[in-house]
Amino acid sequence: MTEGPGQLSQALPAAATEHWATLTAATPAWNWPGGAEVAVSLSFDVDAETACFELGDEGLRRLTKLSDGRFSVVRGVSRILELLRRYELPSTFFVPGWTAENYPHVVASILDAGHEIGHHGYAHLRSDNVSVDAQEEEIERGFAALEAVGAPRPRGYRSPGWEVSPETFRMVVSAGFLYDTSFMSDDRPYVERYDDLQIIELPSHWSLDDWAYFDPSHLTSAEAWRQNWWTEYENARDERRNVNYACHPEISGRGYRTVELGRLLERILSDGRAWFATMEEIARHVEPILRRPA
Amino acid sequence: MTEGPGQLSQALPAAATEHWATLTAATPAWNWPGGAEVAVSLSFDVDAETACFELGDEGLRRLTKLSDGRFSVVRGVSRILELLRRYELPSTFFVPGWTAENYPHVVASILDAGHEIGHHGYAHLRSDNVSVDAQEEEIERGFAALEAVGAPRPRGYRSPGWEVSPETFRMVVSAGFLYDTSFMSDDRPYVERYDDLQIIELPSHWSLDDWAYFDPSHLTSAEAWRQNWWTEYENARDERRNVNYACHPEISGRGYRTVELGRLLERILSDGRAWFATMEEIARHVEPILRRPA
Amino acid sequence: MTEGPGQLSQALPAAATEHWATLTAATPAWNWPGGAEVAVSLSFDVDAETACFELGDEGLRRLTKLSDGRFSVVRGVSRILELLRRYELPSTFFVPGWTAENYPHVVASILDAGHEIGHHGYAHLRSDNVSVDAQEEEIERGFAALEAVGAPRPRGYRSPGWEVSPETFRMVVSAGFLYDTSFMSDDRPYVERYDDLQIIELPSHWSLDDWAYFDPSHLTSAEAWRQNWWTEYENARDERRNVNYACHPEISGRGYRTVELGRLLERILSDGRAWFATMEEIARHVEPILRRPA
Amino acid sequence: MTEGPGQLSQALPAAATEHWATLTAATPAWNWPGGAEVAVSLSFDVDAETACFELGDEGLRRLTKLSDGRFSVVRGVSRILELLRRYELPSTFFVPGWTAENYPHVVASILDAGHEIGHHGYAHLRSDNVSVDAQEEEIERGFAALEAVGAPRPRGYRSPGWEVSPETFRMVVSAGFLYDTSFMSDDRPYVERYDDLQIIELPSHWSLDDWAYFDPSHLTSAEAWRQNWWTEYENARDERRNVNYACHPEISGRGYRTVELGRLLERILSDGRAWFATMEEIARHVEPILRRPA
Repeated sequence: MTEGPGQLSQALPAAATEHWATLTAATPAWNWPGGAEVAVSLSFDVDAETACFELGDEGLRRLTKLSDGRFSVVRGVSRILELLRRYELPSTFFVPGWTAENYPHVVASILDAGHEIGHHGYAHLRSDNVSVDAQEEEIERGFAALEAVGAPRPRGYRSPGWEVSPETFRMVVSAGFLYDTSFMSDDRPYVERYDDLQIIELPSHWSLDDWAYFDPSHLTSAEAWRQNWWTEYENARDERRNVNYACHPEISGRGYRTVELGRLLERILSDGRAWFATMEEIARHVEPILRRPA
Repeated sequence: MTEGPGQLSQALPAAATEHWATLTAATPAWNWPGGAEVAVSLSFDVDAETACFELGDEGLRRLTKLSDGRFSVVRGVSRILELLRRYELPSTFFVPGWTAENYPHVVASILDAGHEIGHHGYAHLRSDNVSVDAQEEEIERGFAALEAVGAPRPRGYRSPGWEVSPETFRMVVSAGFLYDTSFMSDDRPYVERYDDLQIIELPSHWSLDDWAYFDPSHLTSAEAWRQNWWTEYENARDERRNVNYACHPEISGRGYRTVELGRLLERILSDGRAWFATMEEIARHVEPILRRPA
Repeated sequence: MTEGPGQLSQALPAAATEHWATLTAATPAWNWPGGAEVAVSLSFDVDAETACFELGDEGLRRLTKLSDGRFSVVRGVSRILELLRRYELPSTFFVPGWTAENYPHVVASILDAGHEIGHHGYAHLRSDNVSVDAQEEEIERGFAALEAVGAPRPRGYRSPGWEVSPETFRMVVSAGFLYDTSFMSDDRPYVERYDDLQIIELPSHWSLDDWAYFDPSHLTSAEAWRQNWWTEYENARDERRNVNYACHPEISGRGYRTVELGRLLERILSDGRAWFATMEEIARHVEPILRRPA
Repeated sequence: MTEGPGQLSQALPAAATEHWATLTAATPAWNWPGGAEVAVSLSFDVDAETACFELGDEGLRRLTKLSDGRFSVVRGVSRILELLRRYELPSTFFVPGWTAENYPHVVASILDAGHEIGHHGYAHLRSDNVSVDAQEEEIERGFAALEAVGAPRPRGYRSPGWEVSPETFRMVVSAGFLYDTSFMSDDRPYVERYDDLQIIELPSHWSLDDWAYFDPSHLTSAEAWRQNWWTEYENARDERRNVNYACHPEISGRGYRTVELGRLLERILSDGRAWFATMEEIARHVEPILRRPA
């Protein structure tokens, strides 16, 4: 298999035309609980040191880069939990198996605070970059590690690095997840399809991922981040849909950023029209609407 | 043919001195319809999944990246059409053949709303990266696909990836397009030339392309985007020229960005001095001015 | 040893679970001197031309790039010293051995003004990129060069390029430094650990490094820089912790940036609640707190 | 000669310690004409299509990228000349030989408006990337081309791509230029040295180059650009030094940017304390101060 501009050795794939056309035409009434006009989910990927594992052996020699990831479990999660406690908000934490095995107390603190735990692979390997065996290990050891530290079987899956290969998609569907949050075909809950596979999708997006604002190689202002995310909230509210913010404790858990995230949450709360929920709660709410016969 | 700094195996090309000097000296009176001081075109490249095809076979395994592109046709186009309907604005959509073949209902919705459809290749392959045969296929299958879904023969061409090779330029001229919108030699309508070829050009620019503001690897604030584009409008109005904004439904069709685009359009409309038109309308208006003997 | 996505030839490392859990749970009362609510350290890495040495022989032929680094010692340090003098603030300068050998007057000016000198390698080679011998030379010649120009034996170490290999970590611990400032596991003073090694850590972060805001390939506004750093200060104050700003004289010593840095310092001073100190002073203050038996 | 991290096959160079220490200590009184507190130079590099030549043969096939550069001579220069005329400001244009040969009318328009023309190589090849022969051709054909279109022999040199190799530095000194503006060791006029070579330097910097704000891969807001450059002006004025803004007609000559540049110039003019001058005028003014025996 070759790679590179224009190196296409196979026929271009066809789209599931009817399926996507149906989504385009759909304007589901979500009827959020309590008369809310918009549903808001906050999620946090607890990658910790796993971001270095993608670099191979060399990554394991970069002790500073490892420590930058470790901030997630040493400091970020507890700061985020405190923020959520202050505003009494539920949230979903996607925890790679390696993180759970090595920091079981972090998983315990998340569960103690009543938040949801989701599946985020084992060593955070991006599925399209590794062998099918490695992909299977990501899924299976991910489950096993969460189980070993006492987490309920996860109902949701988020792919490491926002990428899903065909093989991993099949594994995710086979594993019987209630919902996935790895795709970006829509900004409303929808059914994602590929080949004969389908799953309920709660999409996020690169622009709703804190990484896009704070990677050191393209750092922007925390105010711009807050402003973009506020405007997205306004639009979701006006369209009566939902918005799924995707954060990382080692990114949004840095002091000045948590302050700005708090300002965003305060403003949304002041608006008085949002239903804050875990992703599982949102999935359970939208499932009957999405599965309803046309 | 080698590539790299300083690897020039041929003589440097000469410029068409007289031609470009004429443009520099020209200050055409555009006399926009209805006494407007400025002409504004909005255009949208409906790339959908084709952005992945440049990555070769590996791109076809990246289901999340494919879904990020697919947002264009699932969600972006309809949101943009609604925006245009609200302000009663005409627009031009450049649709790759692959998109048309796979999402004929999207082309239909654009045509139903009265907008123009332009040529944007077949699989969105950048012409300077592929063989002459592949370039021919891009042009020919691009035409065929649009025809197959009932679109009128396109009068305008925009190159995929803002790049045109000498071979593709020849094909574009031979195909008899009324206008091209792939070059950047001026910010007024002009005649682009290369060798013995020439075409009426309605130029845009990287800074008038939403990609430059919102690619995840260099995301900036949506307010900065709106501000830059507003100032460009002011300048175009003061110079009595036109401005061609180039957007993508999977980029500008994201919620918070459509809100900002709406704010830009409202401000321009409030200014009361713009003629909003399709690119074909602008081309037809400027053609006699550009073809007028000196 | 191979490198690349998923090329892990060894077992994934285990985390020092208990150690990091203790940090997470800890909320030390720092009791900053004079009743201050927050400790602030300013530090400046005087890299000068050494940034080019990472490029190998080719770097030595890039006279402009070398001059961009040299600005540090020709202009940046004196402007920074003047700023510190104006506000009567102490600071820490991390000086590579090569810089000290070639610009002994710069070291003298820093010492004359009463600031601390820290260890920053010899030729600023990133430890994970070079051989063990080269790493040893970085440490040993770094010490020797500072001694040769009359600096006191440095008590603190900052790694070149924010990266520490296992071998260099062992050398740093063996050298008996009072503190290190190369890791990012926390944003409070803490004990960094790897294998059987440990050291008192005064962490900074990429987002508290001026490079992330001003590298020419991703330049942002100086106002955004000041705003981010001010919010970090507010958060550190509210949490009664400290903040370690990491600058470079060739970056923050550019005119318009020194102006903004001055505005930040004025605002912090006006707040009246900060203890400005050298990193050594902070290390001496926190050492008994960190070494206290639980 | 190898390249890469830590690939240093030669001894590290020593700095001209005494020379640079003298600069550090110097606080020359520039005594700008007319009692001005600050000298301001505007310069414009008329690269036109030459930016593509660095890409080798492949660059010559990228007709759109070539057109983006060509905007410089088709549109940018005349818009900049109009801006300068409006405020009656002198300026310096650095024109590669290829540009002069192909667009002699552009050189004529610059000369007619009374501005200075400087040397900017022939095909804009970065000196450290090409052979010594190619470097010689850059210098010699650069002179010949400017002479052929009637420009006075240039008194100043700016290196293509802000990089100078040892060989090119020697050629520049041998050619007898009055001043160079390629280095960044200081932000005041100074004498740049390497080996036995020296030249009067009027330094600019990456942060004073419009490219750093507007390259499509890291575009920022035009307001941030104006604000950074205004603060640099304020600092230069307060320090009674000068500031050298470095622009490109294909960058700053884009409509919305010229508007912002105009706002910057208006604000500086309103301040009433600047001496706007060509770089040659500044060089002539500072030469006796820099050459004065200590």
